[in-house]
Amino acid sequence: MNKQIKAGIIGGAGYAGGELMRLLVNHPVAEIEFVHSRSQVGKAVTKIHQDLIGEIDMTFTDQLSTEVDVIFLCMGHGQSEIWLKEHPEFLKIPIVDLSRDFRLENADQPHDFVYGLTEWNRGKIQKAKHIANPGCFATCLQLSIFPLIKEQKISNEVHITAITGSSGAGQQPRSTTHFSWRNDNVSVYKAFTHQHMDEIDQLLQTQKLEKTQVNFVPVRGNFTRGIFASTYMKSDLSESDALEIYRKTYADHPFTHISEDPIDLKMAVNTNKCVLHVAKYGDQLHITTIIDNLLKGASGQAVQNMNLMFGLDETSGLKLKAAGF
Amino acid sequence: MNKQIKAGIIGGAGYAGGELMRLLVNHPVAEIEFVHSRSQVGKAVTKIHQDLIGEIDMTFTDQLSTEVDVIFLCMGHGQSEIWLKEHPEFLKIPIVDLSRDFRLENADQPHDFVYGLTEWNRGKIQKAKHIANPGCFATCLQLSIFPLIKEQKISNEVHITAITGSSGAGQQPRSTTHFSWRNDNVSVYKAFTHQHMDEIDQLLQTQKLEKTQVNFVPVRGNFTRGIFASTYMKSDLSESDALEIYRKTYADHPFTHISEDPIDLKMAVNTNKCVLHVAKYGDQLHITTIIDNLLKGASGQAVQNMNLMFGLDETSGLKLKAAGF
Amino acid sequence: MNKQIKAGIIGGAGYAGGELMRLLVNHPVAEIEFVHSRSQVGKAVTKIHQDLIGEIDMTFTDQLSTEVDVIFLCMGHGQSEIWLKEHPEFLKIPIVDLSRDFRLENADQPHDFVYGLTEWNRGKIQKAKHIANPGCFATCLQLSIFPLIKEQKISNEVHITAITGSSGAGQQPRSTTHFSWRNDNVSVYKAFTHQHMDEIDQLLQTQKLEKTQVNFVPVRGNFTRGIFASTYMKSDLSESDALEIYRKTYADHPFTHISEDPIDLKMAVNTNKCVLHVAKYGDQLHITTIIDNLLKGASGQAVQNMNLMFGLDETSGLKLKAAGF
Amino acid sequence: MNKQIKAGIIGGAGYAGGELMRLLVNHPVAEIEFVHSRSQVGKAVTKIHQDLIGEIDMTFTDQLSTEVDVIFLCMGHGQSEIWLKEHPEFLKIPIVDLSRDFRLENADQPHDFVYGLTEWNRGKIQKAKHIANPGCFATCLQLSIFPLIKEQKISNEVHITAITGSSGAGQQPRSTTHFSWRNDNVSVYKAFTHQHMDEIDQLLQTQKLEKTQVNFVPVRGNFTRGIFASTYMKSDLSESDALEIYRKTYADHPFTHISEDPIDLKMAVNTNKCVLHVAKYGDQLHITTIIDNLLKGASGQAVQNMNLMFGLDETSGLKLKAAGF
Repeated sequence: MNKQIKAGIIGGAGYAGGELMRLLVNHPVAEIEFVHSRSQVGKAVTKIHQDLIGEIDMTFTDQLSTEVDVIFLCMGHGQSEIWLKEHPEFLKIPIVDLSRDFRLENADQPHDFVYGLTEWNRGKIQKAKHIANPGCFATCLQLSIFPLIKEQKISNEVHITAITGSSGAGQQPRSTTHFSWRNDNVSVYKAFTHQHMDEIDQLLQTQKLEKTQVNFVPVRGNFTRGIFASTYMKSDLSESDALEIYRKTYADHPFTHISEDPIDLKMAVNTNKCVLHVAKYGDQLHITTIIDNLLKGASGQAVQNMNLMFGLDETSGLKLKAAGF
Repeated sequence: MNKQIKAGIIGGAGYAGGELMRLLVNHPVAEIEFVHSRSQVGKAVTKIHQDLIGEIDMTFTDQLSTEVDVIFLCMGHGQSEIWLKEHPEFLKIPIVDLSRDFRLENADQPHDFVYGLTEWNRGKIQKAKHIANPGCFATCLQLSIFPLIKEQKISNEVHITAITGSSGAGQQPRSTTHFSWRNDNVSVYKAFTHQHMDEIDQLLQTQKLEKTQVNFVPVRGNFTRGIFASTYMKSDLSESDALEIYRKTYADHPFTHISEDPIDLKMAVNTNKCVLHVAKYGDQLHITTIIDNLLKGASGQAVQNMNLMFGLDETSGLKLKAAGF
Repeated sequence: MNKQIKAGIIGGAGYAGGELMRLLVNHPVAEIEFVHSRSQVGKAVTKIHQDLIGEIDMTFTDQLSTEVDVIFLCMGHGQSEIWLKEHPEFLKIPIVDLSRDFRLENADQPHDFVYGLTEWNRGKIQKAKHIANPGCFATCLQLSIFPLIKEQKISNEVHITAITGSSGAGQQPRSTTHFSWRNDNVSVYKAFTHQHMDEIDQLLQTQKLEKTQVNFVPVRGNFTRGIFASTYMKSDLSESDALEIYRKTYADHPFTHISEDPIDLKMAVNTNKCVLHVAKYGDQLHITTIIDNLLKGASGQAVQNMNLMFGLDETSGLKLKAAGF
Repeated sequence: MNKQIKAGIIGGAGYAGGELMRLLVNHPVAEIEFVHSRSQVGKAVTKIHQDLIGEIDMTFTDQLSTEVDVIFLCMGHGQSEIWLKEHPEFLKIPIVDLSRDFRLENADQPHDFVYGLTEWNRGKIQKAKHIANPGCFATCLQLSIFPLIKEQKISNEVHITAITGSSGAGQQPRSTTHFSWRNDNVSVYKAFTHQHMDEIDQLLQTQKLEKTQVNFVPVRGNFTRGIFASTYMKSDLSESDALEIYRKTYADHPFTHISEDPIDLKMAVNTNKCVLHVAKYGDQLHITTIIDNLLKGASGQAVQNMNLMFGLDETSGLKLKAAGF
């Protein structure tokens, strides 16, 4: 039986591309039409993504075809823009771009990509042709504070420390992902200057909250999957009022869940969920937030956005068994 | 929409019960009717299995009902037999028992439980009312050598070392699952005497291979999920003949895959797959085998067996996204 | 050859006691005279601290003797005070107490224990008879900001997130140190309310800095040893001025080191060092700090304090090879 | 105070070189005179081995000097032989070579390097000028069976599975040491064909035990330090007789310890110890053995051999605090 939606993947040999395939091979409505890769052309997909053994019988190709219903761009940052200039014929097709090339609006170089933070832009995404899928940290951080932003209850200074798994750094071995170094280790990088801050600032600006300062310290954790964010700010909101805002904002979103109990990272690992816990300590409002960086933070949200673009149930192909352990 | 098959779970607060629920909440045909637990009665299921947040809205109950289509017994070893003596009315219902109470045939105390190693007993399972689900090590080890046993090509002495994740030891904290001890650590336990050897011996006996000696060294690994088994024996088989035997035996089984390339544990983690690699070095035939101990080694195989008992597609509810990382 | 200083250990079966023994067996001047334990009396020390095989040939005893030069109290919190009431004869002997019983000055119940943060109280420690060894988080956090406190350059609001290894939770298995849960996991606990804040507040008070608010979020990390603290505050200090303050304050302390480069946790693991990195981003002064929670955060600092009490080189027995990996 | 023995290190930027420095900076008799590195010349040693902060104040040099008492060669395999051909003047100096270039005797190209397995060759090492330090697996495996070889009690077929940490693969990031792949993963490599088998075969040959076949399966573990070997063979020896042979052989060796209780890897991590446990199950004699691959398996044994060459206490500078956790 052929499925309805045929997807082409550009840049399928990396982590985002592999995770996308893990989702699409079991998607009830979509299927993979081709997987493009410059580096691995001619190789079986299962030579690179070995865990897909028994699930996919394709080889990486260097042939492109516009005879697909949707294109996922899974190349490195900066590559999507170049590729689309070289292949403008693909602009007529629905695209989900996982790079950061079109995440920011740009008055000098206008584009028609809608920022794909589903919980913020669902309505626009449903009508969009082109989606700029958010960054993993950006997704986690924005979901941490989006209800407060939406309700104009965010404070002037917000403090976020977020710990990320190594898969966010991709497939290319390097010194900070060398097992002998990373195992049992913790370190900070790009403190106060991480590139995903741009996406958060853009969200604040759209809500006229330019004066809100977000202090963000990213931390490298010694695990592979997931982002755990700890966010706090001085707030006049009571705990129950804050909870109400979070519950209301996320009530009709299938992947955001407010936990009564404190949360831990593995509750979200290998799922498309974002789980939040909200608590008040003295005058500090504290929000902890977890996502899987490769799913809600990348390929999972990409499929969620595809579902919306094609009028499917938002959760199609995304009811994933949590790893749990 | 009510689903066709209503399942009752006895002993739902442990790891096997939790993993079973993670599968059944997304099963296309089956659904959970009640989750029984003595220790957690009255608590929301998501208080214990927190990652199920947003997926299940039940509480643990101490009420039993025979108005179900299948019962899963997920209590500790020895408890299933006692429970069934106390509740004989459930014997009329299809049962999948995850304990080891009925895995061995017993001339003194005959029972009607069929040993649920799907790849060995599929035909019997399809007709069975009661299934004794195999142990995790037993599943991995038997699948490692089953093709050779079936074809009477097993050697007289077989050497197996298998490394297991901590989740096999269950939910109860103890010294050998204490993080400060287990992390980065390796140790051997029950060398040559592991209780799962009984199941392997039973398989050998049914094939009149009593003289085959299996030396089995179990190793505690510092990870949570999975079993990696390394098996070798002196053999007259060429590599290609051995491969042919494995391919033939597993050809029509959807979860067993022969990899051309060497394998690593994470290819199978969070899936119901068993992946094998077969190679010959001099006169030694070497087989490496991986499973997820909680899925193919427990709750996944339990659902696989339920599927067969009810005439469903064997893979229903078991097309799982690998963790990959 | 008998060594000069004979040490008695009370509560030697736990993690702090074991780590203390690992240090004292190689100390050039001190030696262990007896190791007291209620729970393990009669057992060889190497049955509990197995890695000490070949280094110590003692058994845990329930016999006490005041014929020692120093006593280390390594029992649980609350136990030291009780024990000293039951055994007042030991108060005449130099004591290093690793519990939190005497860390705070108490106008209602005055005591003569000197707070053993070496870099703050070295002069007093050299003359002290009784030392209250600081908590692990307290040590790391105080060393993070002590130079700014000392120079009255601390800001009114300080933000600290610190990630700790599991060994800080001790030897007793529990759900939050269960390997299957803790591995690859991250969680927050006691946010804004951790008990070690008392020690930090006491330090601030002695410097008339009561108005400084410290927001502290402790995080459980998935490693065994070490604390990584990320601290920031709005500050008028330039980076070079801040660096100068840190360098000056710690110049004559052998275990505190200022790194020019960003640091990672494993630089300090298995050593008595505290390594700091100081940087300025916009108006935020950011300090990262690492210690080994069982060494500088517990037993290492205890030996450092003993060295000072007895007029030894502060580093005696503490020149430890870093684990590195 | 200048120390007696001045050491030059060639190839100091890698893992073995770094570990050697960690030992020599605290050695009571030896000190580092220079650290040579082609790749890092001019850089401070602490820029590469960051954990040495506060312990060493040297820069990597490209200048060589024969004005040293001992040379450690820590370059890659194959490089030592080339380097010594280019710098024959160093052959007059005592050398400890950590590569495998001179580990095997070679009738065609005779050399004067003594194989540095201390427990086998202590007498020769004490008189040697040049030492070929054994490989990490070779050390662990030879120590596992050396007593049986020495007493001519080894069986004809020996089965060894050994699990190694990632640091054995060195500092260069590669796919099999990429954190996202290695974490929580297990895999086999070079089964039956590992290059260290040559060293074991050489040991067997010297004892006229050529007919003994050793089946060796090396396993990549998800930890950084240590090797855990599980060895068994059919044997007529009783457990007590076997124990007696092990105890006798290792009685006068300070770093080999026989444990009555089962062992776990972390008992040896960060020490120069080799700990063994011997047990009999039916007709199978089972030996488990642990070392730290960078210490007893590399730089620790190198220092041990230096100690012997210079008539020092064999344990000088090697009384290391175990990591324990």
